[in-house]
Amino acid sequence: MSIETPTSVEIRGEHACFGGRQGFYSHQAKSTGTKMNFSVYLPPQATQGKVPAVYYLAGLTCTEETFMIKAGAQRLAAEAGLALVTCDTSPRGLNLPGDSDAWDFGVGAGFYLDATQAPWAGHYCMGSYVNLELPTLIEVNFPVLDDRRGIFGHSMGGHGALVTALRHPQRWQSVSAFAPISNPVAVPWGQKAFGNYLGADQERWKDYDASELIRTRAYPGLLLVDQGNADQFLERELKPEALEAAAKVSGQQLWLRRHEGYDHSYWFIQSFIADHIAHHAGLLK
Amino acid sequence: MSIETPTSVEIRGEHACFGGRQGFYSHQAKSTGTKMNFSVYLPPQATQGKVPAVYYLAGLTCTEETFMIKAGAQRLAAEAGLALVTCDTSPRGLNLPGDSDAWDFGVGAGFYLDATQAPWAGHYCMGSYVNLELPTLIEVNFPVLDDRRGIFGHSMGGHGALVTALRHPQRWQSVSAFAPISNPVAVPWGQKAFGNYLGADQERWKDYDASELIRTRAYPGLLLVDQGNADQFLERELKPEALEAAAKVSGQQLWLRRHEGYDHSYWFIQSFIADHIAHHAGLLK
Repeated sequence: MSIETPTSVEIRGEHACFGGRQGFYSHQAKSTGTKMNFSVYLPPQATQGKVPAVYYLAGLTCTEETFMIKAGAQRLAAEAGLALVTCDTSPRGLNLPGDSDAWDFGVGAGFYLDATQAPWAGHYCMGSYVNLELPTLIEVNFPVLDDRRGIFGHSMGGHGALVTALRHPQRWQSVSAFAPISNPVAVPWGQKAFGNYLGADQERWKDYDASELIRTRAYPGLLLVDQGNADQFLERELKPEALEAAAKVSGQQLWLRRHEGYDHSYWFIQSFIADHIAHHAGLLK
Repeated sequence: MSIETPTSVEIRGEHACFGGRQGFYSHQAKSTGTKMNFSVYLPPQATQGKVPAVYYLAGLTCTEETFMIKAGAQRLAAEAGLALVTCDTSPRGLNLPGDSDAWDFGVGAGFYLDATQAPWAGHYCMGSYVNLELPTLIEVNFPVLDDRRGIFGHSMGGHGALVTALRHPQRWQSVSAFAPISNPVAVPWGQKAFGNYLGADQERWKDYDASELIRTRAYPGLLLVDQGNADQFLERELKPEALEAAAKVSGQQLWLRRHEGYDHSYWFIQSFIADHIAHHAGLLK
């Protein structure tokens, strides 16, 4: 491998993969005040120069490993010449009161926002981490371009990808999502998380709701969203119809594809990952 | 999905995947006297008629899930029209004395042979299970052809695939392996397992050693073997050079490919899985 290993992050493991390198790392993060794990796949093209990176945000209970292991994306990223970056779904090891009582809140459930309420504020700041701290770390330590970034994700991470790009469109040149929580202010997962992280004022929740954001400020590009019709969370938690309705209001370009028979799993994600990699490659390269 | 679900096995989960179906099942196995888990990927072509199946045998500590989750094979099997079948690496739940004391023997380490020694005999019979019982179950319950079968595997499972095909060449029309234990009678993993499962008479061990078998009876076809040169087990446990030497003796067609920088992981396997799927598809279709 002629790709140099980074020096300012802790290397947990590096493996040759499709002529590139699959690496697992950690670093001390300012956004969370904790050590955070992340993973980077570098395609073989990264041996010749900097490549664009696409950041993937995982769903509830997942880690930085989930997508890298389950999505089958490296084959496609190697062909397209894209780096892939993943991070964890929350800080870990803080042992804040109530942070491990449920699988849909706290540890593994950071919702990619910046908490304002005690005891979460100052630690559960995955919004800033994903939008700023992690890309800066990546662009300093890896052969990754600093002016072209893509973002995508699944479920809670689909919410995170849409919201991050809608809030900071100048930083993210391509966006897509698998089965995103499209209207978190209106569903149980989102209401529980936003109430705890952001407080009782529901006006503040709208800052992190893709459907609410799209109504007032369309993203300057196409949003690709895939959704399985056999998804067990579709009606109660995901509500892609809210995204569609909001997109009509502001003229947002939205390509929402519904797939008969597909559920919420990575078996669904891997079935359509090629279209997402192609979407990002087309806009970033 | 228009593929009927099997009725004589227990369905643990089924998921749409690349237009086909990824399923996880269990059944009461005669070879082991235990409930055994297995997994089947059916490509979309299976909705139109029976397809050939390729059986994958996993390595030490793995389960029927490992390959299905980590190898990125479904995309390729869907394109090639091949079913994929995986099984567990040993019986589980027997609580035989010493079956869980080490990760390289007993539970998760059945070595795809038929044990002759107490207390393993009558339960640790993964050789018969893989060669006969599982294919029969699959061919009765799934739209899979009963006259064309491929087999491949990794590490202990690479050993299992080579040995199963060499012992029963009429049943297996295509064979390949990733980083197989190529000469188990000569390495610590094999000596420990064979001594316990097969007893002190080392002549009996040769019945389950690919390099020993090839010397006297070549397989009537090409053996494709991939090996990473950065594999942490290469010198001590794998010994592909023994396979090469034996193949020269009997004129066995062997395509042993060594890959610089690749280790023993599924990051290695997924990097070369396309060539294996193509190898099996070319011989089975």
